[in-house]
Order: sequence, then structure tokens, then C-alpha cells
Amino acid sequence: MNDDTLKKLEKLGNSILNDLKSGRNPHIDIPIRTFSNIIYNKKNRTLSIGNKFSKRYFLNVAHSKKFMQTLLVSAFCKDLVSENIHASIRDMYYNLKKTLPGTKENTFDEQSESDPIIIDLEVALDVLRENLHLTTDRKGIVAGNVIIKDRGDLIDWSKLGSGGWSIPSTVEEIKFKKVDANFVLVVEKNAGFERLHEDKFWKKYNAILIGTGGQASRGTRLLIHRLNEEFKIPVYVLTDSDSYGWYIYSVIKSGSMNLAHASEELSTPNAKFIGLTISDIYKYHLEKMSIRAKDVDIKRAKELMKYPWFQNEKWQKELNLMIKDKIKAEIEALSARGLKFITETYLPEKLESKNFLD
Amino acid sequence: MNDDTLKKLEKLGNSILNDLKSGRNPHIDIPIRTFSNIIYNKKNRTLSIGNKFSKRYFLNVAHSKKFMQTLLVSAFCKDLVSENIHASIRDMYYNLKKTLPGTKENTFDEQSESDPIIIDLEVALDVLRENLHLTTDRKGIVAGNVIIKDRGDLIDWSKLGSGGWSIPSTVEEIKFKKVDANFVLVVEKNAGFERLHEDKFWKKYNAILIGTGGQASRGTRLLIHRLNEEFKIPVYVLTDSDSYGWYIYSVIKSGSMNLAHASEELSTPNAKFIGLTISDIYKYHLEKMSIRAKDVDIKRAKELMKYPWFQNEKWQKELNLMIKDKIKAEIEALSARGLKFITETYLPEKLESKNFLD
Repeated sequence: MNDDTLKKLEKLGNSILNDLKSGRNPHIDIPIRTFSNIIYNKKNRTLSIGNKFSKRYFLNVAHSKKFMQTLLVSAFCKDLVSENIHASIRDMYYNLKKTLPGTKENTFDEQSESDPIIIDLEVALDVLRENLHLTTDRKGIVAGNVIIKDRGDLIDWSKLGSGGWSIPSTVEEIKFKKVDANFVLVVEKNAGFERLHEDKFWKKYNAILIGTGGQASRGTRLLIHRLNEEFKIPVYVLTDSDSYGWYIYSVIKSGSMNLAHASEELSTPNAKFIGLTISDIYKYHLEKMSIRAKDVDIKRAKELMKYPWFQNEKWQKELNLMIKDKIKAEIEALSARGLKFITETYLPEKLESKNFLD
Repeated sequence: MNDDTLKKLEKLGNSILNDLKSGRNPHIDIPIRTFSNIIYNKKNRTLSIGNKFSKRYFLNVAHSKKFMQTLLVSAFCKDLVSENIHASIRDMYYNLKKTLPGTKENTFDEQSESDPIIIDLEVALDVLRENLHLTTDRKGIVAGNVIIKDRGDLIDWSKLGSGGWSIPSTVEEIKFKKVDANFVLVVEKNAGFERLHEDKFWKKYNAILIGTGGQASRGTRLLIHRLNEEFKIPVYVLTDSDSYGWYIYSVIKSGSMNLAHASEELSTPNAKFIGLTISDIYKYHLEKMSIRAKDVDIKRAKELMKYPWFQNEKWQKELNLMIKDKIKAEIEALSARGLKFITETYLPEKLESKNFLD
């Protein structure tokens, strides 16, 4: 992968060099990322970028600063990949921030200028920022019957006590040595992870347990994707029964608008939703534990109803139910039925009956 | 520790039982936690609760609901400790929420009612919520030359690849099997953790590297405390050069007002601050990478100036400098001098010259 990315970066550099040598105005082709060029692929069930391009020219007063910035970021990433080191996108910003000699003009004034350039480069070269050795914030924990090799260490995810393996910001380079699992269970909350971990849920059901700690980080999404793609392990997502939780599932499954270009590699289209649903609130008599949905929840639910991957009977029913009954519930509400209810009853029943939302 | 806590809970229960048997109005002694009863212990350099008590009576209309709630939480925790399982404070709230038979009265209406009861119980019994088997959100990562035993697994913190060990919500029960380190370096930011981890900083300097990911969780603070207390390993804290970063250091070192009762066990009074200081901005020519301090930063810095543990020349100088020059800087600003500047120059210089703030 390092070699691929390096070649793409070199190709970009060489094309500009050739423009210069031939006396042409150097330019870079950048796919357009606005809504009009984002496509939902029904077959792959992911978002992607269409084929509309814009050209960024060096000799164009409106383009030249961004052109310079694009080359600075490209050169920086080429160094990272060549030297096999990584940098956070904020480190990159500080590293590239310079005042141009003889002027008061800065290469970058704010990180909000360098961040979009990274996305430009991702779409232009069809790589992930992880391939460019740029890192974003890490989050997420994993435990299960898996042995990986990473930076020379053999790591057994089944022997990490109450802790678990802290998922790094990029998992592009880890190698799977042994993967023995019937399914991956992704839990939105760290408390849920700890409950299921303490109850040895992943051991009993031979599963891989992943805690996202809220919205899943890129590293965690890539890990889920790799486990599903490379080992064909089913993925089930467990979140609160509210619009925010369902959006977490939605992003894991099909990606998000602003990362549409990366969806193919970051998302897991055949991930399924195991709960909580609004129906669960009634089925498990959790009415008194439910919370009144706020206007913002209802508004968000109405948006989710329009998402292409929520166009099926079960999801429309749940979304309608939330909007009509104006309720929501947290995973922890299951504790009203007993602390181990989630481990011993709720999840086993769902798995047994294959009662998932797709 | 389980036995100790169990005995304390039983003692509480028995004292109420004795009151009842003797026809006395049952009561619980709860130490007062308001500002007037918080003491800074100069010798231990930690906050603690003074000796003012209040009595919570069963037969007192103003007390009886809280009295009931205190007993419900106590009984719940006794079950947790007896059965050796853990629960999050939110799980506890849902588990204890009931409607009293024949009434419309709930035991608890909101989690904001059950949380303070936990603190009451912590101070009344002089235990941590971790001893009561209640968990709070986990955060934090660790790597270094340490082998621990936890839930039957031997875990080598030096062999976890790019990931690291995810610090669980409680580390009360982990056993240290091998601890070989010259110091503990605590880094505020995950990106900083990843930089130093990739550069093998902890290997080269034989250190233990801990990333807090912002304000340190209770589990992480307890881990730092244990490493310092049980193995006498010096602790150095690295944060942004701003009021928020310095407050993170302050909490690790001496605790916080609202957790004053737990400071003795959660804080590390001889932790030292390795950087970033405002002086560093000038020393390392990072002026152009600095950020203008906002009014809220200045206000916070003025508050920090009054903290007992910031009453020394070096801290007063740095706080004054921030207020006067109205600047602050992030750890990542060091990347302006090169990505590995922090690993190869900044930290080695600080360690060599022992240029710490106490």
C-alpha cells in the first residue's frame, strides 16, 4: 500500500513537472465534493463521489494559493510515506505553517485551510488519509478471539484483562494472524462494552466485541470494515434507541456525506442493526425507563427516514414510531430488568431470532 | 479491599437495624461536602473533607426520601461487591428506578438524584466508588515496560503494537507483576501519545507512556497514583500551554473540588509539570504558532493563580506571562520545528535539565 500511494504522489508531482517543462499552466484535477456530485451506489450500498472534476491552476489568481497549499501537503505526505512515519492533521498544519519570505503572507493561517486540502488529495489520488500516513483522533476498544501482528508485536485480543486493545488511529497496516469469531458486536457506549466484557459475552458467543465510545473513529470504522470484508464476519451494531445512536449505525454501514469519497473503504454496507429499537421499549416493558424525544430528535428522525439505506419496512416503522410516540431510550435502560439482562436475555434473543434491521 | 468495603456497608446496615430495634429514629452520618468543609492539606498536598457532619434521618419529612435513596444505593452496591460484578452509575440509576407500590412516587426521577447519593456514600464510608464496584466512563491508553495481571490474563504493556492498553474504568484490582521504568510521562492528547509511541520514546527512555485524551478519567488518575505510590516512579505531565491543559495537570496532581473526598487516592501530589509553558513559546521560537488567549483563558488563569499548589515562583511567573502577553500554544505547535522535535529535542532537554514546574 505504501508503494501504491508513493507512486500516486510521484505521478502527481511528475505531471506538474511536465506541465512546467512544456510551458503549460500547471494544474491538478480535483473531483468535486459538493452534494450534486455525491452518488449513492445501490449495489454496493455506499456513498461515493461522481465523475465531475474541477481543475486547480497555478497561474490563476483565484487558484494559486490553494495550488501551492496542495503541493505543500503532497510533499509533506510523500515524506511521511517514504520515511514510514505518521503525523496528525494538526501536526501537519503546524509543520507547514510558514511565512513566505519577503511577504506577510502565510502558507496556512488556520487548520481549517489545511484540512480540506487533505480531502482534495484523498479524492484526487483515490487514497485514504491513512494511506498518506495522516492520522485523526483515535477512539475505540476491542476484545475477542483474534491475534494480530502490529509493529512487530503479536497481540492476542482475548488476553487483555478488563482493558482491551486501544484501537489506534490507523489500522491499515495491522496483520490478522488468527481470526476466530461468529460475529462482530459493535457497541456505542463504553459502559456497554464493559458490561459485556465483564460478563464474558464475547467468549461465550465467540464474538469480537468493539466499543466505539460514541461516533466511531475512522480507525474503528476501518477495523470493522476489514473484519467484515476480509473474513466475511457478520457485523451487528448496538446503540441507544434514538436518532443519534441510529446515525452512528448509519455511518458505520454506509458512510457520511462529508466523507463520501472514503465510504467504500471505511463503511460496512452489510452491517445490521441489533437494537435498541422503539419496539424494544414496548416489548421489554421499558416504558417508564424511556425518555421523551426532543424536537431535535424528531427532526433528525425525519431526516434519517429519507436516507436511501433506511428505505425498508422495518426502519420506516421504527422511525415513524419514534416520531409518533415521541420516545427514546438508552442501552442502559435494559438494566431495569437486571444488570445482566442485556447479556443473558436481550442479545441472545435477538441473535437467536435473527431479529435485525438491515 | 472487597472485604473492607463489604464490612463498611454491613456496618452501615447494622447501625440502622440497631436504631430500629432500639426504637430510635434511624439515621446516617454524612460528612458535609460544601466549600466550607473542604481542606487543603499542605503536608500531603491534596484536598480533603473536614470533620463537619450532617445527620440524615428516616423520620424527617425533609430527609426521608434521601434516606431511602441512600439505603437503596447501599444495598445495590452491597450486591455488586458480594457478587463481584461492576455497574456504571447510569446502569445503577435505571436498575433502582421504581414506582413505589400504591403511589405515583418514584424512587429516583433522574440520574441527577442518584449520582450525589454515591458521593454521600463514598464520604460516609470513606471508600471510592471503585470500591463500591461502580464505574464511570473509561478513557486513557498506556504503553511501557510493565507486565500486569488482570482477570487472569498476563498483559505486557510493551507488546501492544501501535495500539496500547485501553485503561478500564477501574484499575483497583489489577496486579503489577513487573514494573521497570524511570518515569511516567502523561500526555494530554492522543495525537501526542501516538507521536511518542511511534518514535519509541518510552522504549528509549525506559518510561511508561500514558495518554489521557483530555481530562484524565478516574481510572487513569488511579493508575498514575498507583504507579507513583507503589513504585515511587516520578510522574511528569505534558499538556498544551493553556489554562485547560494546566487544569488537567492540576487535577492529576491535587484533585478537584467536587471530588475532594477522593483526592487522597486519586491524585498524585508529587507529579511534576514538564510543559508546555508560556516561556517555551519564546524559548523555542514558536511565537508565530501561538494562539491569542481568549477572555475565558485569562479568567481561568487568574483562578489557577489562587490554587494553593500553584503558589510558587515558577507557576506564578507562567500564569502572569499568559495574562500579560495573552498567548497560549498547543503541544502540536512543536511540530513547526519538525515532527520529531518533541521526541528528540524538547522532552530530552527538559528531562536532562530537570526543568519542571512543581
